[in-house]
Amino acid sequence: MQYVLWHKNPDTDSFCSAIVYTQYLRDQWEEAIAIALGKPNFETKYILERANISCPEVKTKLPEWAKIILMDHNEASQSIDNRERYIIKWVIDHHKVADFTTWYPLMMRLEPVGCTCTILAKIFQENDYIPSKEMAFLMVSAIISDSLYFRSPTTTEQDKKAVNILAPLAWITDIETYALEMFAAKSDLWDTPVEDIIRMDYKTFDFHGHFCAIAVSETTSPDYLLGRKEELLEAIEKVKASDGVEHLLFCVVDILKEQTTAIVLDDSLKIIVEKAFNTTVINHEADLWARVSRKKQIAPVLDKYFSQ
Amino acid sequence: MQYVLWHKNPDTDSFCSAIVYTQYLRDQWEEAIAIALGKPNFETKYILERANISCPEVKTKLPEWAKIILMDHNEASQSIDNRERYIIKWVIDHHKVADFTTWYPLMMRLEPVGCTCTILAKIFQENDYIPSKEMAFLMVSAIISDSLYFRSPTTTEQDKKAVNILAPLAWITDIETYALEMFAAKSDLWDTPVEDIIRMDYKTFDFHGHFCAIAVSETTSPDYLLGRKEELLEAIEKVKASDGVEHLLFCVVDILKEQTTAIVLDDSLKIIVEKAFNTTVINHEADLWARVSRKKQIAPVLDKYFSQ
Repeated sequence: MQYVLWHKNPDTDSFCSAIVYTQYLRDQWEEAIAIALGKPNFETKYILERANISCPEVKTKLPEWAKIILMDHNEASQSIDNRERYIIKWVIDHHKVADFTTWYPLMMRLEPVGCTCTILAKIFQENDYIPSKEMAFLMVSAIISDSLYFRSPTTTEQDKKAVNILAPLAWITDIETYALEMFAAKSDLWDTPVEDIIRMDYKTFDFHGHFCAIAVSETTSPDYLLGRKEELLEAIEKVKASDGVEHLLFCVVDILKEQTTAIVLDDSLKIIVEKAFNTTVINHEADLWARVSRKKQIAPVLDKYFSQ
Repeated sequence: MQYVLWHKNPDTDSFCSAIVYTQYLRDQWEEAIAIALGKPNFETKYILERANISCPEVKTKLPEWAKIILMDHNEASQSIDNRERYIIKWVIDHHKVADFTTWYPLMMRLEPVGCTCTILAKIFQENDYIPSKEMAFLMVSAIISDSLYFRSPTTTEQDKKAVNILAPLAWITDIETYALEMFAAKSDLWDTPVEDIIRMDYKTFDFHGHFCAIAVSETTSPDYLLGRKEELLEAIEKVKASDGVEHLLFCVVDILKEQTTAIVLDDSLKIIVEKAFNTTVINHEADLWARVSRKKQIAPVLDKYFSQ
């Protein structure tokens, strides 16, 4: 049995790529099961419901020496706990590589594209495999989500090409309308506890010995979130303490205006953010300007800051 | 410009895969140049001469921030010096991954097959690219070399399949005869200084903080090499001191009998070898039995020993 895993606090790409790749392996007569390390966010839930696919089982522990396949991540800190107890068979990812070590050769397919599902689209084409309507639907959704419908600087021509090929298979005729529906579903946070919002798309990083977290909320209604700032600051303090991270930067990304506002908890983070991003923190809010990609525009700035 | 690099003390696979991949990139109208980090061994020289291909330029330094492509290796210790000064664009490899870190996403294509050229054969097939006669010749040679003509336990069905597809393109009709000619060329060491023999296929490893080297000489006439044992012991001591490694294990692999004899310099290495490989060292020689693969059968044993 092979376990196809996504990262902790999974985003849509992570969820969809794991489900789709599991289906692909099964169609090749290989035994595979998708395992969720966390619950889907609102956007992912909306997509799964529309595709009529049930959410895989949540598990945080597997049998010892189980064969695992890592989708959309490679860093141990973002992966299943005690990863050294398992055998990593495959890694399919589009992120930077951090301290990756094995004692055996394995399969790795990493490409600097906007979405893991774009890599899957290439693998499928190379192997003359046509995904089902449902799987193509998940793939298109993941690419739209990860690339903010091609607005993110992480977007490549290959992501656009993949959507053009997959959308007809997914019976999606108007991609733009569908993208807006997805983003609206993601922004519907009115009954969600702020701590859940923070943890929804939350990643930890080791910036040269400084263990930090960057949480992101991509939304079409940033004013709603910034209106809950007092609650957010309280929750940030709580999450930061419980996870033992040095800093937690919470970024509210306005998908439509392509602009990010970060919420800055305390003075020590204020100094870092002002210097690193060349901005001013007023009332715990910092304009990070047109930086909408954590991977390409936010994390590297902090990484550079801490390297000095 | 992209620089296609192989590892230090390159073997045939490393040499051939870098030359072949450079040609592939050029055929896609990309600028690429193959750079040798070391001189070819006898086997590789023989192959290049038969394919009528001149050996690429030897260089150990490139312009700062040059884009590099790593063939047949990923570990920093086996790579170009000061690798952090360059941008790694691609890695194509079939070895375990050790402490690999970048601050940017990149292309990685790793597969647990017997030879890097087998991965290239797959990439070419996926992209409907047919290599020239000369390039196919290098690829077949590399696969025969790395797999000891399918005798090594690292051999997979995919390596055999690649040779079957490539041999006709390379105009090789009798693969077995060609393999024996290659191995004979490799074994013709009579006028070679022993230090060169040790450095010919030499790799360093970090075994849990123990920095060791394993040198391999694959030959059809092991008696000739073992007859030069006194010279070899002197040279091992010299290389060990100059490279600052804790231990240097020199392995004479009898390709035809599929058996390995290791030369053991001193008592501290004797204790390790006897315990790790469950063997006896007599007169500086240890029978490592049917272990013919450094990657799969020798290095992992030492890695396990030092992990305890």
